[in-house]
Amino acid sequence: MARTISFDKEKALEAVMLLFWKKGYADTSIQDIEKVMKLNRTSIYNTFGKKQDLFLQSLNHYMKMVVSKVIFQLENTTSARVAIRNALFEVINIIYSTKNTEYPGGCLVVLSLLESSQHNKDTKKILDDVLIQIRDAVSARLKQGEENNEFSHPIDHQETAIRFVTLEMGMCVMAKANFPKKDLEKLVDLTVQSIFD
Amino acid sequence: MARTISFDKEKALEAVMLLFWKKGYADTSIQDIEKVMKLNRTSIYNTFGKKQDLFLQSLNHYMKMVVSKVIFQLENTTSARVAIRNALFEVINIIYSTKNTEYPGGCLVVLSLLESSQHNKDTKKILDDVLIQIRDAVSARLKQGEENNEFSHPIDHQETAIRFVTLEMGMCVMAKANFPKKDLEKLVDLTVQSIFD
Repeated sequence: MARTISFDKEKALEAVMLLFWKKGYADTSIQDIEKVMKLNRTSIYNTFGKKQDLFLQSLNHYMKMVVSKVIFQLENTTSARVAIRNALFEVINIIYSTKNTEYPGGCLVVLSLLESSQHNKDTKKILDDVLIQIRDAVSARLKQGEENNEFSHPIDHQETAIRFVTLEMGMCVMAKANFPKKDLEKLVDLTVQSIFD
Repeated sequence: MARTISFDKEKALEAVMLLFWKKGYADTSIQDIEKVMKLNRTSIYNTFGKKQDLFLQSLNHYMKMVVSKVIFQLENTTSARVAIRNALFEVINIIYSTKNTEYPGGCLVVLSLLESSQHNKDTKKILDDVLIQIRDAVSARLKQGEENNEFSHPIDHQETAIRFVTLEMGMCVMAKANFPKKDLEKLVDLTVQSIFD
């Protein structure tokens, strides 16, 4: 009979994801990891592998639990305008959610992209692909909006999608620099207006 | 007679600035620092202080040698339009300059903002202030452009300056995610058009 894993794997991954997101890869020690996961290094190694493997699983967990919230908004069926606006407001909620201590602020993907020299080729490829995935989701949503006659003017889906991703990435940095949340909310509204009006 | 410092302090600071910029704060070991500065830890400690002090001096060096290039373009006297465009193209040059190995890519300020938990309150304040300084320089340049009748329409200097900073920060992340440089050049041109036309 297989040995039952006597701890909640998802809960342990959530805890270590928040740790990497707060501290960055290099600054996260095995002692920190043991503490937040409430497991010893042998259990961690046997279940998740070494630090690099654990990071990759944390990143996948981040995609599933955090980035998915933005993608979900993009798939909003009401209209492309509502989808784009809600997706950017979802980003703001995530990157500023330090107040209620749900998240540590900013974005794990942005932090890890900046810390590229700490990651191997495979991890870097996954990080680069997150941005491409968001760009393509935005581009597809704009195309769908055009098919539904939401625009009175021609729109370049790809250019606008790149603008969306750059804005999203920029806001992640601004949040970490303590720029007022309302400044970014205003910027999102102005951007949405300039895309759709 | 005072002992002569027998090494080039600026050159040593340049080397350690590039190291922090490439690796991040936590991942930079004292051994790495000794190697790039070509000094032993005692000389480093006696001249620059501990790692945290050395980081602060590297950050100041970055301001003087790198951020100053962007500020210089903003102060371009030809027109606000040329100033804004050239400043954003200067950012692109800096963040993509890995090809010629001059810089490691991305931005030390953005990396350090994301790695906020690795820095103390004083350093964080300096990092936050860099973005405010750029915002205010852009805002002032737009105001000057308005006084010189460069705009045919009213412009909100502060909102536009926040848009500039968010775009700049976003581009730093996109460069690290290997987005094509030409996509960002196009985005800058579209942004400048939408501000000025």
